[in-house]
Amino acid sequence: MEEMIVSLKDKQVPIRMERGLLKEAARWIGTDHRVMLITDQGVPEQYSRILAAQFPNCEIMRVMQGEGAKSLEVYQRILSRMLQLRFSRQDRIIALGGGVVGDLAGFVAATYMRGIRFVNIPTTTLSQIDSSIGGKVAVNLDGVKNSVGAFWQPEMVLIDPLVLKTLPQRHVNNGLVEALKAGLIADEKLVELFEKPDLTEQREAIILRALKVKKQVVEQDEHETGLRKILNFGHTIGHGIESYYHLQQVYHGEAVAVGMMKMIEDPQLRQRLRPIYQRLQLKEDLDYDRQKVYEYITRDKKADGSTLTVVTLKQVGQAQLQEIPIEKIRAYL
Amino acid sequence: MEEMIVSLKDKQVPIRMERGLLKEAARWIGTDHRVMLITDQGVPEQYSRILAAQFPNCEIMRVMQGEGAKSLEVYQRILSRMLQLRFSRQDRIIALGGGVVGDLAGFVAATYMRGIRFVNIPTTTLSQIDSSIGGKVAVNLDGVKNSVGAFWQPEMVLIDPLVLKTLPQRHVNNGLVEALKAGLIADEKLVELFEKPDLTEQREAIILRALKVKKQVVEQDEHETGLRKILNFGHTIGHGIESYYHLQQVYHGEAVAVGMMKMIEDPQLRQRLRPIYQRLQLKEDLDYDRQKVYEYITRDKKADGSTLTVVTLKQVGQAQLQEIPIEKIRAYL
Repeated sequence: MEEMIVSLKDKQVPIRMERGLLKEAARWIGTDHRVMLITDQGVPEQYSRILAAQFPNCEIMRVMQGEGAKSLEVYQRILSRMLQLRFSRQDRIIALGGGVVGDLAGFVAATYMRGIRFVNIPTTTLSQIDSSIGGKVAVNLDGVKNSVGAFWQPEMVLIDPLVLKTLPQRHVNNGLVEALKAGLIADEKLVELFEKPDLTEQREAIILRALKVKKQVVEQDEHETGLRKILNFGHTIGHGIESYYHLQQVYHGEAVAVGMMKMIEDPQLRQRLRPIYQRLQLKEDLDYDRQKVYEYITRDKKADGSTLTVVTLKQVGQAQLQEIPIEKIRAYL
Repeated sequence: MEEMIVSLKDKQVPIRMERGLLKEAARWIGTDHRVMLITDQGVPEQYSRILAAQFPNCEIMRVMQGEGAKSLEVYQRILSRMLQLRFSRQDRIIALGGGVVGDLAGFVAATYMRGIRFVNIPTTTLSQIDSSIGGKVAVNLDGVKNSVGAFWQPEMVLIDPLVLKTLPQRHVNNGLVEALKAGLIADEKLVELFEKPDLTEQREAIILRALKVKKQVVEQDEHETGLRKILNFGHTIGHGIESYYHLQQVYHGEAVAVGMMKMIEDPQLRQRLRPIYQRLQLKEDLDYDRQKVYEYITRDKKADGSTLTVVTLKQVGQAQLQEIPIEKIRAYL
């Protein structure tokens, strides 16, 4: 069992990682209270069955797969169901799935009865590495990603690497981009793991190291008022590209991979990354309309009046926050 | 200018009270950022005009009057409008109105882009005394009051007693019930103010003393995990009665007044309150179906598994939290 604690001002959030942990989840969570298990149609049903069987009082809601579930409509449907079943402030939500499920279930937990407990059991590399910790929860509105949400920390995060066995390779790679990002901004050794001969063998080590980077950044700036913005490396342009593709066809990590490459000034570092991108089947660039992506970026939440905070990278471990006039982002597109 | 600071763990919330403060609001708030002014059709239009004129960049949204505005539909409409106008995380919401507007606008502020700044300018006695401070924001869902919300502290609260001039007497009295409640649970002198010859003359003194009680309680227990529940004195049954009347006909304070009387054990104290109730045109009891009110109470957020936390009052200043089996609330109805 690997364990680390994210130490926040009001809360200690334990992150536990072990093969087979899904089968032991209730031992860590406790079974005293009712559970609303939120999952989606992309998560193998056997996983929710394994989990639900461990709780005497567990309701399951399975939402549609994909970014479309992160809507105020689905959010309201879950809240209504919980009211109907008379869930109380003492009860608990468990999210079982990828980032979409975690973001949606987390926002329900943040706001049902002004906030209830929430356990995150991420089932994709992306969510195991990145979105399950840090407390950012949200839904999308009017095509603007994560425009409605909160900061709401989970009670704990349980990571079972065995659930990744059923994940398609493209999804696995999608998540690994966030680990590569963590390495680039803060951990040379993590980047080196991506250069070892057998990537699959390194997977759990990669997840752990990436979690440690994220933990350290979040501990220093829980509410993203400063430092934490470095985690957005590659994301400003990445989100713009995702919006351009209407959150379809291109995966989050694939868009971020393009965004990162564009924010790296050093040609040698770009060169070093190419073989890694190849292994992860990532493209260095994608086909998009620069003007449209620019428009998406400037209506994104990072657009702040007339300036924009971007993250640039000089070398591995040297990420910088830069406040630039909005117009200047065009130079990177 | 009366000023007090609510000192919370992460935040200092100034509360300023002065006649004519509405006309000076921007001097305290600052005009650097954009403002979304949320008000309702019950608030005189001249008030929003006076306020809006002080900001170079101010949008106004006027929602319907009454509890019906505290819905996810109206919430979504405001969020969409803000996205359309490209409000950023640095911009600001101002709530101008009663508790409904404050709760609704506060929940928008708590969740737009994961939280933006929020100034509360309460225009009713109820909101000046009670709902504008403490950070509880929410909307209603499926007939369950405040079932979706957050704790989100305002940046500041500006109270102008002159705006009460246009408030109907029944509304004025409605709010004064919360001040009487504050007196009953914690401040004998505040109860005595209600016994002085001219109540209108005492109004500002009453508001101030009530705010001080609330400030002290909220400072000790911001997220209502314990002590703060004493502010719910009269509210368990009160909310049940409000729900029974479908939040129509009976005002919040009127329902709470009935709820308080039922939780006071001492016959002498009940007797002492009768002349005050008469002055405020409050009834000691109302006509309702006990079984139905019981059902509303048990689906309320205070229903927690098989027990219920109620606040009983032995004497003025001696409020007690009591955990009782849910069934036992019937004895008080």
